[in-house]
Amino acid sequence: MDFAKMNGLVPAVVQDDATNEVLMVGFMNDAALARTRERGYVTFFSRTRNALWAKGEISGNRLAVVALFVDCDEDTILARVRCEGEGRVCHTGERTCFFRTLEEIEEVA
Amino acid sequence: MDFAKMNGLVPAVVQDDATNEVLMVGFMNDAALARTRERGYVTFFSRTRNALWAKGEISGNRLAVVALFVDCDEDTILARVRCEGEGRVCHTGERTCFFRTLEEIEEVA
Repeated sequence: MDFAKMNGLVPAVVQDDATNEVLMVGFMNDAALARTRERGYVTFFSRTRNALWAKGEISGNRLAVVALFVDCDEDTILARVRCEGEGRVCHTGERTCFFRTLEEIEEVA
Repeated sequence: MDFAKMNGLVPAVVQDDATNEVLMVGFMNDAALARTRERGYVTFFSRTRNALWAKGEISGNRLAVVALFVDCDEDTILARVRCEGEGRVCHTGERTCFFRTLEEIEEVA
């Protein structure tokens, strides 16, 4: 993997293996990717907390890895997952973080 | 949109609206997003070329926007698209940039 382009990070897209919904995008560094593979659950690197972030560890909405894909230039991960717990991946309680269109955001703003 | 977290860029995930395949991930700055909306075709900001990049302009494999979603913290775009041309989104000629698993890459390396 090419971690150099983004100062040690690569974007990681999470897709529901059952529904094909795109659930969220996070970032992984080398250690986050290693832990994701080791444990079989998605671990990100949190840019705001500057630490590994085992997604769903507290809420129970963990993301079990079904398969990990890499893009052509090896600087992006696609994780196909099975959602555990209530399957509410977004911290707002929605199933996916992408629950609003750009137009919907602008109407509120 | 929050462009500040990544020095003016946000990741943009491209998903085929017909098949739900994740096709590629690029980056957009404010101008790339504006042009994407204006023209109805995905335009990225190329980090390597440091310029706007109208995806498929030369190859004909353009990405017509069906809908643009934004994630909960407004720092990532999900573009649902209709592929034009031969639908070979990846520069390698594949339909998607995510055509290999992490294991497949490691076997080659």
